Formats: sequence, structure tokens, C-alpha cells
Amino acid sequence: MLPRETSSAEGGAQFFAEIREQPAALRRLLEHRAEYERAAAAMATRPLVRMVGHGSSDNAASYGVYAFGLAAGLTAVRDSISLSVYYDAALDMTGSTVVALSQSGRTPDVLEYVVRARRAGAFTIAVTNEPESELAGTAEAVLPLAAGPERAVAATKTYVTQLGALGLLAAHAGGRGQEFAGAVAEAADLLEGHLPAFELATSQIAVPFVSVGRMFVIGRGPEFATAREIALKLLETCYIAAEPLTATDLAHGPVAALDPLFPVWAVAAPDATLDAVVDAAKRARAAGAAVVASGTAAGALEDAQYVLSVPKPSEPLLAPLLSVVPGQLFAGAVARAKGLDPDKPRGLSKVTLAR
Amino acid sequence: MLPRETSSAEGGAQFFAEIREQPAALRRLLEHRAEYERAAAAMATRPLVRMVGHGSSDNAASYGVYAFGLAAGLTAVRDSISLSVYYDAALDMTGSTVVALSQSGRTPDVLEYVVRARRAGAFTIAVTNEPESELAGTAEAVLPLAAGPERAVAATKTYVTQLGALGLLAAHAGGRGQEFAGAVAEAADLLEGHLPAFELATSQIAVPFVSVGRMFVIGRGPEFATAREIALKLLETCYIAAEPLTATDLAHGPVAALDPLFPVWAVAAPDATLDAVVDAAKRARAAGAAVVASGTAAGALEDAQYVLSVPKPSEPLLAPLLSVVPGQLFAGAVARAKGLDPDKPRGLSKVTLAR
Repeated sequence: MLPRETSSAEGGAQFFAEIREQPAALRRLLEHRAEYERAAAAMATRPLVRMVGHGSSDNAASYGVYAFGLAAGLTAVRDSISLSVYYDAALDMTGSTVVALSQSGRTPDVLEYVVRARRAGAFTIAVTNEPESELAGTAEAVLPLAAGPERAVAATKTYVTQLGALGLLAAHAGGRGQEFAGAVAEAADLLEGHLPAFELATSQIAVPFVSVGRMFVIGRGPEFATAREIALKLLETCYIAAEPLTATDLAHGPVAALDPLFPVWAVAAPDATLDAVVDAAKRARAAGAAVVASGTAAGALEDAQYVLSVPKPSEPLLAPLLSVVPGQLFAGAVARAKGLDPDKPRGLSKVTLAR
Repeated sequence: MLPRETSSAEGGAQFFAEIREQPAALRRLLEHRAEYERAAAAMATRPLVRMVGHGSSDNAASYGVYAFGLAAGLTAVRDSISLSVYYDAALDMTGSTVVALSQSGRTPDVLEYVVRARRAGAFTIAVTNEPESELAGTAEAVLPLAAGPERAVAATKTYVTQLGALGLLAAHAGGRGQEFAGAVAEAADLLEGHLPAFELATSQIAVPFVSVGRMFVIGRGPEFATAREIALKLLETCYIAAEPLTATDLAHGPVAALDPLFPVWAVAAPDATLDAVVDAAKRARAAGAAVVASGTAAGALEDAQYVLSVPKPSEPLLAPLLSVVPGQLFAGAVARAKGLDPDKPRGLSKVTLAR
């Protein structure tokens, strides 16, 4: 049984329920593996992957840079939407695959980008939770997230399934889709087993953050996506001005702003980026900032005040699917402690139709 | 004569002096036009431009996305450094030009990236203020910024010359380098003429921002680079948690965090992105946030509390070289009003050797 600390009297019932549904959502995604395999085959002759999306979808694209690079040796970029849509730049996209990310399939400029990219010669793929959407109808291939309806305004399960989707597509492009799908299933089990501990740990440390107005969230490599997504959750559910930075960019200016009222959340992975993240956390501590250590190498950040350890999946590229979850839960716990409702952040609606 | 409001008793003498030197620095850059033309010719057969850098250099690369896209029809991306340097991804770079941006020419992972990119088949160009640096020795072509020594820790004239350098390289790649160089010279004159007015206007509005802890800085298209660079100046000189966002991304979550103590700086350009920036500013005002309108279409943001108008250069792609300057001066003015020294932000040194 999953913990049920949510009562209807407290805000965020949907947000927490959807966080808990993430393992099931990943399993549903895997039922569509054949579609991912077919799309990957159609990408074969195109050396550049152009990803587009806003908000959490753009954060997922940061993960895609590493998924395509490491699993398929492909250069994947978060492409400029405005260069095509607003400036009508004459780009040759015949050597490109476009991966358009939109939960709703209705994001106006993403849709317009796909129209123009097709015209410029790209092979276009829509990755969406709404396979009947206008975006899906516009792209040449549609890959469902199969996350089920997402009702909380702040995205959780559609973000984690976007990571799974990009990883699966990249692994198929690299010829190891089946093995990767097995690793996703294992990661879903691992996440399910650790959710209660994550919920307990994050609810225990949330209260001191009620008075926090500013944070940095740092990560590097595939976990930079995690840093970006946790910062966005803190912004939209707790109204904390949380800025994501690579561990290295922290030293190129922003570290000057740190003080004891400006905590840093660090996502550490046990790989070649670890030294950079350890150095950045030391720099933050030296500035007097409190440090929250998270990720699958959280224990390596020795003088962190708070540690939220994440178990290692068998495939290291899947770590971000787990390491974002304590951040989601922490954001929800801080929001509740502040009396806010993470289901309904002020000024937002579920489908963003902003230009 | 330039205004001399700086006395040695006040902090930031170097920072302000280097801001004032920017027109002269741009003119010196133009003396190297032949080198830019040669490097552009060597880029000709390579469809992808991979830019790398940290901090202000990475912000300049955001401008490069548009400069190469609009002036040369080339796809240019801010490439992942860690994918090559830390994860040793097997990327084919034979169709790529690398543009490595580093003021000092000593940024460790940028240097290592260039070594690996050359090995992977890229044509490598170093754009640096130190043409005798190790980075310059490692790349196949060296393009000097010619900004003169930069002593304030917070970069100003090397950022503006990086924009000029990327624009000039892109314009030469697109076959209109000479015309563009003429437009840069005009923009330098225009900037020089407006510096006193920029200084006066920013010093007049700085004081109310002494108590501000958080800001968003929004822009889109080429002016997104301006938003990123102004946010970095505010972080490193005034210790304001300033986050850059595209005008559209503001609506995808972060707008929820706004309140009357969380001002928004909006950079508006008179082009197809203007409606998105106008909408974003309206959203910010609706949340109670104070809005500072800047850029060459500042006047279009009708209910902004503060307006810092920037004159239009003859070539629209050069607007970011001017529109960043009120942001630099504002950051310096707020720092002084807080009793901080923008020449020497705490915890930073001029050359960042962080991993």
C-alpha cells in the first residue's frame, strides 16, 4: 500500500496522487514500445535531433540531449522555436528529426514549429499525452506518453514519462531498445518501492523551507534536467525563486548571490560529473548556504545539511526518472506547509496557450 | 566627454569604466574583420555550429543561435560540454564548426571540449580576449575580441564584443560581412551617444530596487541573450536572484511565483516576438509585479512602471549590443546603492577555473 497522508482538506491531493502513479505510468508507456521502435527506425538517416517544448517539456528535452548522445551517438539539441516560428529563418532541416514535446498537444508555437519543420524537410515526431491532439495530427509519427489524465497543474507523471519516452526512443535508435525497456520496468519497480521513504523524508525536512524565497538547484549531465524540473516545481507550487544552474555555471557568477538565506539543492550522480557537483556544493557551503544533497550520489556531498538519497537503477541513464521524485514531493510538502495548493498554483491553468 | 560620476571612494570604478569603453572595444573588434572573414570561409561546408562557453560567454552563445540562423541560415546550438568532456559520447562532428567562447581562454572544460571536438572532426574556432591563451593555441582559428584588458570581475565589454564577434562571423558566413561591419560601426556610435542618457536613467530608478531579492528577466529571440546577461549581472553584482526566462516560458509555471515584491525586467524588440513579450508583461502586472520595460520596443509595454528605451540600430540583429547596456548600468547602480562593489563580487575571481 502506498501512504495516504492526503486528505481532501489539504491541498495537493491530485499532485501527490499523480506523483504516486509514476511507476504505473512508466509501465503503461512500455506497452507502446513497438511504436517507439518504429519511429526510431525512421530517424536512422538523420544525424540531428531537434527537440522543442516549454516548461517541463523543455526540461525533459535537457535529458534528451544526453539520452540521444549516450544511447545512440546522436547530437540532440533543444532547438530555438522562435527562430523558425517568429523569424522564419531559412534553415535546412532535411538531416533532422524533430521531437516535439507537449503534454496537451496544444502548445501553439510548438505546433507551428512542427508545421514549419516538416516544410523544411525534417522528420517530425510528436511525444504527447494526447494522441488525438492537433499536434499529433500534424506530426508524421505520434508517440503516446500513456501517463493517463494529468489534472494537477504542476506536471509530474507526464515529465517522468517524457524522460522514459526520450530514453526509449534513443535506446531504440542506438539498437538496444529491448534491454532499455527492461531497465525502465525495473526502475519503475525501484521507484514504487522507495516512494514511501521519499514521502517521509521530504515531509520531515520541508518546514524550515517555508521562509525561503530563493534557491539554486544544481546538477550536471543528465541530472541537469532534474535540476531544471525541481526548480520549476519549487517556482510553481511554492513560489520560491528557484533557478537551475549547471554545477560549473554556479561558479561563473551566481555563487556571489548566495548567503545563509539562499539554500542550494544539489543533484549528484556517481559519474564523471561528481567532482564538479561536489566542488559546487562546497562553494555553496563556504558562502553560508544550506545544502540539500539529492540524487544517486547524495552521500558524496559530505557537509550537506539535508540528504535525500536516491537508489541507483541498473541503467545509469535512468537515474533522472527517480531523482526528480524527491524534488516533486519536497515541493508539494513545502507548498502544504505554506498553506498553498500545489494542484492549483495561482495564475496558471493546465493547458498553456500563451504565445 | 563621458560622464565621470565615479570616484575612487565608490565601488565599481572599473565596472563603469569598462561599460563606457564598449563603443571603442567594438571599433577595435572591427579592425580584425579580415580574420573573421577567413574563418567564415573555412566554415562553409559544415552545416552545424556548436557553441560552448560558461556564464556571459554562454549568454553570448544564445545570441549566436539567432545570428547564425538569421544572417547565414545555419543551425547553431549551445552544445553540451559535459556530453563530450565528462561522458566521452561518440559524436560525429565532421559536419560541425565549433565556436569556443572564453574571455580568458583558460576555462578548463571549454579547452578540453575543443581538444575532443577536433579529434571528432570539427573545425574549431576560439573567440577570446586572450589570443595567446591555451585555448587559442588549441583551436584551428583564433578570433580576437580585442576588448582590451577587462579588470572588473563582472564581464561587460567582453560580452558586447562577443556579440559583435558572433554577428560578424555569421554575417561573413552569409556573404554580407562588409555591410554588417558597417552597421556595427554605426551601432558603436549610437551606443556612445546614448551612454550618458542610459547612465542617468538607470541611476534614477535604482534606489527602489535596493530591497528587491528576486526578479525575472524576460526576452525572446535575439534578446533572450540580453535577458540572460542582465540576469547574470544582477546576480553577481547586486546578489538579486534574477532568473532569465523566455517570454513564453514565463507562462509555463514561473508566473505563479510573482507578487508585488518580485519585479520583472522585460526586453522588448519591435519584431514578431513583440506580442509574446507584451502578453508576458501584462501577466506580470496582473500578478502585481512591477515591470521595467527596456529594449528597442520598450514603449510598447504600456503599463510598465519604469521605461528604459534603447535606440534602434540600422541592423535589427545588432539591437542586443545596445539593449544590454542599460541592464549593465542598472546592475552597477543598484550595487552601489546597496554599498556593494561591482568590481569585486564576493566569492568570485576574474578567471574562473572551476570544474
